Amino acid sequence: MDLSIGIDIGGTNSPFGIVTREGEVLGKGSVKTRDFKEPEKFADVLSSQIKDALAEIEEPYTIIGIGIGAPNGNHHQGTIEFAPNLPWKGVINLIALFQNHFDVAIHVTNDANAATIGEYVFGKAKNLDNFMVVTLGTGVGSGFFSNGKLIYGHDSFAGELGHTIIVHDGRDCACGRKGCLETYASVTGLLRTAQIMLAKSSSKSMLRDIPTDQLTGKDIGDSASKGDALAVNILDYTAKRLAFSLANAVAITSPEAIFLFGGMARAGDLLLGPLKRYFEDYLLYLYKGKVRIEISALTEQNAAVLGASALVWNETAN
Amino acid sequence: MDLSIGIDIGGTNSPFGIVTREGEVLGKGSVKTRDFKEPEKFADVLSSQIKDALAEIEEPYTIIGIGIGAPNGNHHQGTIEFAPNLPWKGVINLIALFQNHFDVAIHVTNDANAATIGEYVFGKAKNLDNFMVVTLGTGVGSGFFSNGKLIYGHDSFAGELGHTIIVHDGRDCACGRKGCLETYASVTGLLRTAQIMLAKSSSKSMLRDIPTDQLTGKDIGDSASKGDALAVNILDYTAKRLAFSLANAVAITSPEAIFLFGGMARAGDLLLGPLKRYFEDYLLYLYKGKVRIEISALTEQNAAVLGASALVWNETAN
Repeated sequence: MDLSIGIDIGGTNSPFGIVTREGEVLGKGSVKTRDFKEPEKFADVLSSQIKDALAEIEEPYTIIGIGIGAPNGNHHQGTIEFAPNLPWKGVINLIALFQNHFDVAIHVTNDANAATIGEYVFGKAKNLDNFMVVTLGTGVGSGFFSNGKLIYGHDSFAGELGHTIIVHDGRDCACGRKGCLETYASVTGLLRTAQIMLAKSSSKSMLRDIPTDQLTGKDIGDSASKGDALAVNILDYTAKRLAFSLANAVAITSPEAIFLFGGMARAGDLLLGPLKRYFEDYLLYLYKGKVRIEISALTEQNAAVLGASALVWNETAN
Repeated sequence: MDLSIGIDIGGTNSPFGIVTREGEVLGKGSVKTRDFKEPEKFADVLSSQIKDALAEIEEPYTIIGIGIGAPNGNHHQGTIEFAPNLPWKGVINLIALFQNHFDVAIHVTNDANAATIGEYVFGKAKNLDNFMVVTLGTGVGSGFFSNGKLIYGHDSFAGELGHTIIVHDGRDCACGRKGCLETYASVTGLLRTAQIMLAKSSSKSMLRDIPTDQLTGKDIGDSASKGDALAVNILDYTAKRLAFSLANAVAITSPEAIFLFGGMARAGDLLLGPLKRYFEDYLLYLYKGKVRIEISALTEQNAAVLGASALVWNETAN
């Protein structure tokens, strides 16, 4: 039995999974990223947990490789480079760290690219040569597939749709610039929109019963589904901004489908409805009616680890 | 000797060239596109001109294929689809038309994609896996290379950077929408900017000596090079708009170089200077200092035909 190990290095937790070629997770575990001041120790402890999990597997197996999704993961170099949300500074050589423990091929990429390859190997994008994935969580990530391959770009940092500027002199972004898609279409962006709309309007809304600093994306989705007009407007505004950005991206890679993933995608048709409408409006005539937008097939719990493991299957398939 | 035939179908003229693998043009000719109401007749006359030109070649040769660059050229289908500037309506099957005359492989793509492949085969992008070409003429076209291949997209219509929207509710575009890059960064867009700036300001300028409807891109370049402040401002404004769009595109495909081509590129450093400055300002920190912008190595006279012929060499190389 061939197995791949998927590791999702996150700011808080770093879960792993032992995954079959069919996407079945045979073992899993997790370490707290912030417990480790040194990446060496992190790799030691995580590797020993992985070995414990492997010991539980009763069938004979071969580990084909390890796939790692990480913020600012550099696929070409196998490194993490200057990731703002991790406890380790500078450039971290993940391949070197994990090859101390596992003598197999190790592949690295960023989390959104891992989700994109996950969609290709295990999700709705099977057999699609041209598609994109947009992850709508705390931030906005993206991955572009073209000619049957992920677009890494020359430095491995392609696919930052969240940091395309969609509003001149728009909202301040954590990247230091203004008006990035991420400041509108992430869950954080949604909450910024909610605060602005709550302050600007004086119309009634269930959202006014919730202290501003406790407001969540789920509250907005729930209120909208109960017909709260302001909550519906907040989602509509967000959908419009996202649609604008997606339509511009289509003019570059012309995908046949766009898969949405992450917290915002949970709003389902409340977001998708207006999103698809605005998207068709914004599209250049050449593309109208040709590009479908769907919610990802991967569940949020497993997606990051599946996506990371899919890196391995994708590399061995080529 | 292996030869490729490059044909550039344009709204006014359709030149062709007989090209060696090294990019030497051994024979050429041209027909007037508008003389032909039927595409069949067009293909007949053009093919017979090509055969006449081939008859002049004294060395023994083999024709490897025909490459055709055409507005709305569909690479997957070998067709022209609903090109607004051609005398033929609907879908034209170019492969069928030319295979009546030449029993060789025939490849079709749009003009900007042909220019991009031309840059890859004969120009400054040799051996680059990730780059983009932007053609700044009457319109704005573009082609993206990623993982060593042109991005055609699922329908073969990828690479329409000129029709990404860069200003919400901006200038009316021929595509029916508003604020497309093309309305600012094409030669036509430059002239619109000139008219607006001449009307808005009352400062002295050499440009005021030229009747508005006779003003050309060259006039603006010439005046700017003589230090005319208004002309410099017009180029600066254009450079800023273009820089914004290029920086956003970099966040999608992360190219190592951008090559500019066409009428606007003739302004040289008057455009490139401010363009590079604004571009670096707009870039996400991940990309700063990593992406060079250069003028294409192909001369305008030969580029379209060379690009079309390069389609053949590029397909046979893979």
